[in-house]
Amino acid sequence: MTPALLDALKAALGAASVLTGDDIPARNEFDQTLGRPTRPAALLLPRTTDAVAAALRLCHEAGQPVVTQGGMTGLAGGAHPKEDEVALSLERMRGVEEIDPVAATLTALAGTPLAEIQAAAEQAGFHCGIDLGARGSCSIGGNVATNAGGNNVLRYGMTRHNVLGLEAVQADGTVLTSLNKMLKNNTGYDWKQLFIGSEGTLGVVTRVVLALHPQPGPVETALLACPSMEAAVGVLTRLGAEFGSGLMMFEGMWAEFIDTAVTMMGLPAPFERPHELLVLTEIAPGPGGAERVTDALGVLMEDGLVEDAIVARSGNDAARLWAYRESPYEYYKHLASQTIFDVSIPRADMAAAVADLRALAAQRWPSAMQVVFGHIADSNIHIVIGPTVPGVPTSPDEKRATEAAVYDVVAHHAGSVSAEHGIGRNKRPYLAHSRTPAELALMRTLKTALDPKGILNPGRVL
Amino acid sequence: MTPALLDALKAALGAASVLTGDDIPARNEFDQTLGRPTRPAALLLPRTTDAVAAALRLCHEAGQPVVTQGGMTGLAGGAHPKEDEVALSLERMRGVEEIDPVAATLTALAGTPLAEIQAAAEQAGFHCGIDLGARGSCSIGGNVATNAGGNNVLRYGMTRHNVLGLEAVQADGTVLTSLNKMLKNNTGYDWKQLFIGSEGTLGVVTRVVLALHPQPGPVETALLACPSMEAAVGVLTRLGAEFGSGLMMFEGMWAEFIDTAVTMMGLPAPFERPHELLVLTEIAPGPGGAERVTDALGVLMEDGLVEDAIVARSGNDAARLWAYRESPYEYYKHLASQTIFDVSIPRADMAAAVADLRALAAQRWPSAMQVVFGHIADSNIHIVIGPTVPGVPTSPDEKRATEAAVYDVVAHHAGSVSAEHGIGRNKRPYLAHSRTPAELALMRTLKTALDPKGILNPGRVL
Repeated sequence: MTPALLDALKAALGAASVLTGDDIPARNEFDQTLGRPTRPAALLLPRTTDAVAAALRLCHEAGQPVVTQGGMTGLAGGAHPKEDEVALSLERMRGVEEIDPVAATLTALAGTPLAEIQAAAEQAGFHCGIDLGARGSCSIGGNVATNAGGNNVLRYGMTRHNVLGLEAVQADGTVLTSLNKMLKNNTGYDWKQLFIGSEGTLGVVTRVVLALHPQPGPVETALLACPSMEAAVGVLTRLGAEFGSGLMMFEGMWAEFIDTAVTMMGLPAPFERPHELLVLTEIAPGPGGAERVTDALGVLMEDGLVEDAIVARSGNDAARLWAYRESPYEYYKHLASQTIFDVSIPRADMAAAVADLRALAAQRWPSAMQVVFGHIADSNIHIVIGPTVPGVPTSPDEKRATEAAVYDVVAHHAGSVSAEHGIGRNKRPYLAHSRTPAELALMRTLKTALDPKGILNPGRVL
Repeated sequence: MTPALLDALKAALGAASVLTGDDIPARNEFDQTLGRPTRPAALLLPRTTDAVAAALRLCHEAGQPVVTQGGMTGLAGGAHPKEDEVALSLERMRGVEEIDPVAATLTALAGTPLAEIQAAAEQAGFHCGIDLGARGSCSIGGNVATNAGGNNVLRYGMTRHNVLGLEAVQADGTVLTSLNKMLKNNTGYDWKQLFIGSEGTLGVVTRVVLALHPQPGPVETALLACPSMEAAVGVLTRLGAEFGSGLMMFEGMWAEFIDTAVTMMGLPAPFERPHELLVLTEIAPGPGGAERVTDALGVLMEDGLVEDAIVARSGNDAARLWAYRESPYEYYKHLASQTIFDVSIPRADMAAAVADLRALAAQRWPSAMQVVFGHIADSNIHIVIGPTVPGVPTSPDEKRATEAAVYDVVAHHAGSVSAEHGIGRNKRPYLAHSRTPAELALMRTLKTALDPKGILNPGRVL
């Protein structure tokens, strides 16, 4: 960047909001893909939408590339800076500005951590529909920019479904404000939908209006052993019909996943014998309570859809069941490297895709640990493949080959190479596996229309 | 249009799919706003997406304006042709192509009537989340193009929330296909969101993949008398917390509305005395059944949020309660003219907005019938204002003045001039009441990027 632009940014934002060199904190520098820091030309820390607008106006005039940063918890490399970029972090635009109890909405600045929003909603007697593992660090602006998913998408939808209003700044500094609180509002193009999930390539989200939900009430947690994916989908359908919106979560863990949890992670075997697929489910049964859940599970067992089941009798019990689902967070302690996938497969194809992945792994990486788990209800599975030679980190070339092979399986089953993590920089080479040339051309048309100089998050998504 | 283009269209689509002159049916000609037919230059009746693409390619090359038509039930004048336009009707692209019971999705051609989709979903053991009064005539393509609302938005969201995949044809004939069945799919820009609700100005929807829902089970219908809007919102919040997704519908009818139903329409007074606001609600209570509903209403009455209540004991009872809500469908038999509004007001402002509307009516149109009713949960109210001199149709000038006055009240309360009907041609002059100049500029940028020659539904929305 030019010294003139740096001076102009300092004049517009104040010197304390423009950091360079060693003043830039490590968190704003780290590049997960490269595994090392890449220092941006400058780090901007605006406190207001006007400051964001001023910064973008100046960068736009100068043709200066800008990477937008939220909580830096993304898994697709979208927010990690390149050395010629200005990093624009929303971290100082933080706070819940309003909870409207009549409209059941919450308005927050983009840099507000998700956990802060969840707590504010609960304190006001509501429930925030967005939840994911990174809740303590991720920001709502990042959640919106990436259309974040999580464990409760079955119940509350993706982030997109929870957003009623948005304020965003376009590449040239134009501020778009639609802090809408109304469920129905068909006044022209719903432009916020375009910004949600575009990973900062079309504009910078500065404020968000979320729809809040009633608190779900007491939740029952159960671990179910299913003989097949088909049976698990049957269980999902039946529990959905029985409990409606009370069905909060439905997470699948295939046999190898549980085997790894037991043999590598040292967790106790949950059932007497292995089963093809375990399901961790959470149900808010409402009136009738826990008894209704055990009754429903009893019928599912009689019908052969569930072979065995554990219903948590306490918070400790529930934590023990959750430990299986969360065991991948600790894989890094045991594995020299991991190749991690976040893909969607249409539900009817999921069993076949898992079989194909198993066959692929057996043939290509017979010594590598490979596990499949994830959000069955949302068609979303995660796959982890360990080093092909145990104890030896997978080389970048080998990793690319692994990705190409797995994404071919995904494409074969008409799946999505990114279910909830987004494309960022890491999955850009594979976007064409899930999108047609016409779709990609349309995306480029939209990008050019909204960011003609290509200054926003260049090299991400497209 | 040029004879050369007409010949080319006949060659591409077949002469039987290109009608002109007196061969064009009345339904494809009528202009609701003008109150008389306006005959398009030609009516195209393609049977396939390829035919739609061929037609648009030819029209695009020739710079020929095209108006897209579905079930012709829209209320914003979007589909009514102008004389220089080619009308493109999707009515022959009709049929449910697939129901995927594992993914819980339904794929249909755009011209399929909504009622046909609803019936197919029920037959397969599912429930379609989209429902509105025009269900027998409206088409799913039109529902998507206008992001249709209806009575169950509280439960299932707008049409947008029910669409998983889309096939659409761009202005230049490019076919975009994303017949996605997966709940999570973050692969680049979610372009379908831009087409949903853009009222045919950005492309022509040809196929839709809908998410289906579990059947809700038996539904209880009740009419509640509330002392105030504030009390009604309290009832909404409490019933939402109690019944979750079992709360299917929550429709408000203000005092004047019920008074009109009784005095003008001849319906029996529902309660012994008038109340500020009646609410028609439908609840699928699940286990516990009707008793749970009466119990919940009992508590609401004890707490003073509900002053009186009628719970339907039979289908006939329910129909009698529904008759109030549906009485506006028959207003035309009693009134020389009606000025109808479909607006949203943030819930916290709704009582004040109704008070302002009453004051406005008392001052400006003291002799005109004016009623307010609608989907409180969705922030959406409808307003009907009868002729200012009873028995004398409102003049076009007077109608415009009425619209301007009402939309000023809406804008004052940060509301939306179109909740669910869309902008079309009729509300185009008022779009700026609900959108900022920056938003309108962005909409124009998107329009220009996707339809550079401006051939798709010109003069609608923007």
